[in-house]
Amino acid sequence: MKKRDDCIFCKIVMGEIPSTKIYEDENVLAFLDIHPINAGHTLVIPKEHYEFIGELPLPLCGPLFDAARKISVALRKAGFKCEAVNLHLADGSTAGQEIPHTHLHVIPRFKGDGAGFRFPPGRRQPDVEELKKTAETIKANL
Amino acid sequence: MKKRDDCIFCKIVMGEIPSTKIYEDENVLAFLDIHPINAGHTLVIPKEHYEFIGELPLPLCGPLFDAARKISVALRKAGFKCEAVNLHLADGSTAGQEIPHTHLHVIPRFKGDGAGFRFPPGRRQPDVEELKKTAETIKANL
Repeated sequence: MKKRDDCIFCKIVMGEIPSTKIYEDENVLAFLDIHPINAGHTLVIPKEHYEFIGELPLPLCGPLFDAARKISVALRKAGFKCEAVNLHLADGSTAGQEIPHTHLHVIPRFKGDGAGFRFPPGRRQPDVEELKKTAETIKANL
Repeated sequence: MKKRDDCIFCKIVMGEIPSTKIYEDENVLAFLDIHPINAGHTLVIPKEHYEFIGELPLPLCGPLFDAARKISVALRKAGFKCEAVNLHLADGSTAGQEIPHTHLHVIPRFKGDGAGFRFPPGRRQPDVEELKKTAETIKANL
């Protein structure tokens, strides 16, 4: 199994650092964030070490997202404050990634939680030609 | 195929409302957000209508996340400003969901983009007993 000796999340997978586990299967581990935005804030990670989602093998994509999906349902049923859920993944430090082992946040949300996680307001709407050009550029690199 | 007549994203899937497509397969459609946070901001949706991720059938989880993964790589290669990527999903209106058809945002990020998408600072660290109790509550509902 692909590991990195200096990775905190690999150490959690190996049991070398304690964590509060929520869910585990062959491919995926989910445990509580120790600095939760709200109670129940969970991280879902592949057990193998991949820094970026672009490195994830195809067969891991389903189990990772499925675990987050199951947890999003459980958080609502579990009885603490959870009116809605954010899934959030920071892929690269400029996007807010702090641990270089890809991880999907599952964050319970409730009105007035002050999480400040909404999109910035006042975003402009590009015209159709600009959108088409952007789409062509992305598609050429898929 | 599961559709809802008054759903904007179902209308996009049916071709009744135009969109700028990035990627399409049997299960998944990806198109540009018309109010992008940054150029290249893409939405990935299941073609069938599901309001919440908890309703998504298991076989759709992999294709949805895999499409986002591929687009995260393409955005970096495509030559416009993309040092990192955020994946973001709002599951419920309190989490910021505006269209009641589940959609995964793929957002290119660069230094100084002003997207203001970071986690709120000053989050407290619960003690081990509190974390354990939270985990047990979630696990009992998985």
